[in-house]
Amino acid sequence: MQELLHWFQHLSVVIESGAVLAGALSGLLAAAHKRLDLVGVFTVAFLTAFGGGTLRDLLLDQRPFFWVEHQHWLWFLLALCLLAVLFMRQRHFEPTERAMQWPDALGLGLFAAIGVSKALAVGMPELVAVLMGVVTGVFGGVLRDVVCNEIPSAFNDHKPYAICAFVGGWAYVGWWHWSGSSEQAMLLCVVLTFGLRALALWRNWVVPAWKI
Amino acid sequence: MQELLHWFQHLSVVIESGAVLAGALSGLLAAAHKRLDLVGVFTVAFLTAFGGGTLRDLLLDQRPFFWVEHQHWLWFLLALCLLAVLFMRQRHFEPTERAMQWPDALGLGLFAAIGVSKALAVGMPELVAVLMGVVTGVFGGVLRDVVCNEIPSAFNDHKPYAICAFVGGWAYVGWWHWSGSSEQAMLLCVVLTFGLRALALWRNWVVPAWKI
Amino acid sequence: MQELLHWFQHLSVVIESGAVLAGALSGLLAAAHKRLDLVGVFTVAFLTAFGGGTLRDLLLDQRPFFWVEHQHWLWFLLALCLLAVLFMRQRHFEPTERAMQWPDALGLGLFAAIGVSKALAVGMPELVAVLMGVVTGVFGGVLRDVVCNEIPSAFNDHKPYAICAFVGGWAYVGWWHWSGSSEQAMLLCVVLTFGLRALALWRNWVVPAWKI
Repeated sequence: MQELLHWFQHLSVVIESGAVLAGALSGLLAAAHKRLDLVGVFTVAFLTAFGGGTLRDLLLDQRPFFWVEHQHWLWFLLALCLLAVLFMRQRHFEPTERAMQWPDALGLGLFAAIGVSKALAVGMPELVAVLMGVVTGVFGGVLRDVVCNEIPSAFNDHKPYAICAFVGGWAYVGWWHWSGSSEQAMLLCVVLTFGLRALALWRNWVVPAWKI
Repeated sequence: MQELLHWFQHLSVVIESGAVLAGALSGLLAAAHKRLDLVGVFTVAFLTAFGGGTLRDLLLDQRPFFWVEHQHWLWFLLALCLLAVLFMRQRHFEPTERAMQWPDALGLGLFAAIGVSKALAVGMPELVAVLMGVVTGVFGGVLRDVVCNEIPSAFNDHKPYAICAFVGGWAYVGWWHWSGSSEQAMLLCVVLTFGLRALALWRNWVVPAWKI
Repeated sequence: MQELLHWFQHLSVVIESGAVLAGALSGLLAAAHKRLDLVGVFTVAFLTAFGGGTLRDLLLDQRPFFWVEHQHWLWFLLALCLLAVLFMRQRHFEPTERAMQWPDALGLGLFAAIGVSKALAVGMPELVAVLMGVVTGVFGGVLRDVVCNEIPSAFNDHKPYAICAFVGGWAYVGWWHWSGSSEQAMLLCVVLTFGLRALALWRNWVVPAWKI
C-alpha cells in the first residue's frame, strides 16, 4: 500500500498535467467554434484549465492560485494557443476532443480530490468540501461556456460529469474519516470518479431529465 | 417598541427562510424553462438563493458565507431540487411563481437590510453600503440569468425591484444615523422596501424607459 | 526627466478620469442598445468602468476597491446615468463612441500600468503581473458584454486592444528591472500602449484570424 501511495504521488503530477492540457484544449476548441481571436482563445483556454480551481480558491480565500505558483503553465498555455492558431485545423478538432476524454476524466477525479482536500484543510463542513471538489472539476467548463455565450454544457447535457465528482468527493470524505489517511482518500476519489466517468462514457449513461 | 424589535428578531428568521425558498424556487423554474439537468437545476437554484450574499461577502472580504455557516440549507436545497425534478410539473409553475412574489418581496427588504448592515459594520461609506444591500437582494437573480444565457431581468424588465431595495437601504442608513439603533433601521428598511415592492406589484409600476 | 515625471503624476489623474468616463459611456451605450432600464444602465456602466480593476483586486486579494476609496465616482456615475437617460438620444451615440476612443486608449495604457505596478507590489511573478495589467484594462468590457449576453468583443473583434496592453505591460516590467524607477516604467507603459492602440485604430490593424 505504501508503495502504491508513493507511486500515486508521482502519478498525480502526470494526471494534473494531462487534466490541465485537456482543459486548455477544450477551451481552445470552444474558442475556435466561436471564431474568437488570439486574445479570446487564450482567455477561454485559461478559464477552462484554471477557472475551477481559481473560483474554489476565491471562495475559500486561499492564495496563491495554482497559475501564480506554477507560472510555467501560463507560458505553456501561451505557446499552446499560438501553435494551435498556427497549425491546428478543423480536421484535428474531433480527434483531439476524443483523445482528451480520458485525461479529462482522470483530471476530474484528481481535481475533485484536491478540492475536497483543500476545503477540509481550512475547516469547511463536509458537504461544502464535496461541493468545492465538484466546483474545482466542473466550473472551468462552466466559465468557458458563459464567456462563449452558451448555457454551460455541464448543466444541460444530461451526462454524468459533476455527479461522478460528487460521488468521488463523498468517497474521499468517508474514507478520510474512517482511515485518517488523506493520501488513501485521494487515491480512492480519483479511482472512483474516473471509474464512474469512464463507465458513463462507455455505456452512454444519461441523467434522467425533468419530465415537465 | 422594544417588544416589536424582539418580535422582529424572531420574525426575521422566518423572512429569511421564505426568501431563500423564493430564490431557490425562482432558480428551479428558470432551470426548468431551459431544460437543465439535475446538476444545472441545483446550481441555478443555489446561485439564485445564495449568489447575492456570496458576491457581497466576496467584495467585502467577509467569511464564512451564509451557506457555509448554515450547511443545512444546502441539504435542504439538494432535497428540494430532487423533489422538484420528481414531482413538479408544468401546471405547478405559474402558481409557484405567483405565490413566491410575497416572500420574495419580504426577502428583498431583509437581504437589503442585512447587506447594508454588514457593509457599515466593516466601515464602508454610505453609498457603497446601500449598493451592497442592493447587490445582496438582486444579484442572485442576475447570476441566475447570466448562467441561463439571458440578459438579467433585473436590468431590463422596467419593474421597480433594485430601486425598492435602494430606497430601503437609504432609509436604513438615515435612521441608523439619526437613532443609532441598527435594529430599528433594519425593521424600517424591511417595511419600506416590502411596501414599495408590494405597491409596485399591485399598481403595476413601471420604471420610465430610456427614450432613444 | 524629473519634471516630466512630476507633470505625468498630475496628468495621470486626468487620464484616469478620462478612462473612467470612457468606460462608463461605453457601458451606457451597450446598455442602451439592449434597451436596459435605469438599473441595468447603471450596473453595466459601473461594470465597464470599474470591473477590470475590481476583478484584479479580487484576484490579488487587495482592498479597498477604487470605487470604495473614491466614493464620489459612484455619485458621478449615478448622475451620468440619470442625465443620459433623460437627455441622450440615438444621434448622440455614434459621436460619443468616436470621441471616447482616445481617452479609452490613454486609459488602457494607464490601467495596464496600474495593474502591473499593483501586482508587482504584492510580489506576483512577471507574466502574472503583466496579465493583471491586461485584466485591469480589458475585463471591464468583458463583464459588460457577458451581462449584455454577447460574446466579449475583446475576444472576437480581431482588433489589437488587449495585445497593446500586453506589450505595454512588458515594457513596464523591462524598464522597471533596468532602471528601478516605477514612475518611468509607468510613463513608458502608458506612452507605448497608447501609441500602439492609436496606430491600430489609425491603420485599421487586424489580429490574424485562426484559419480553421
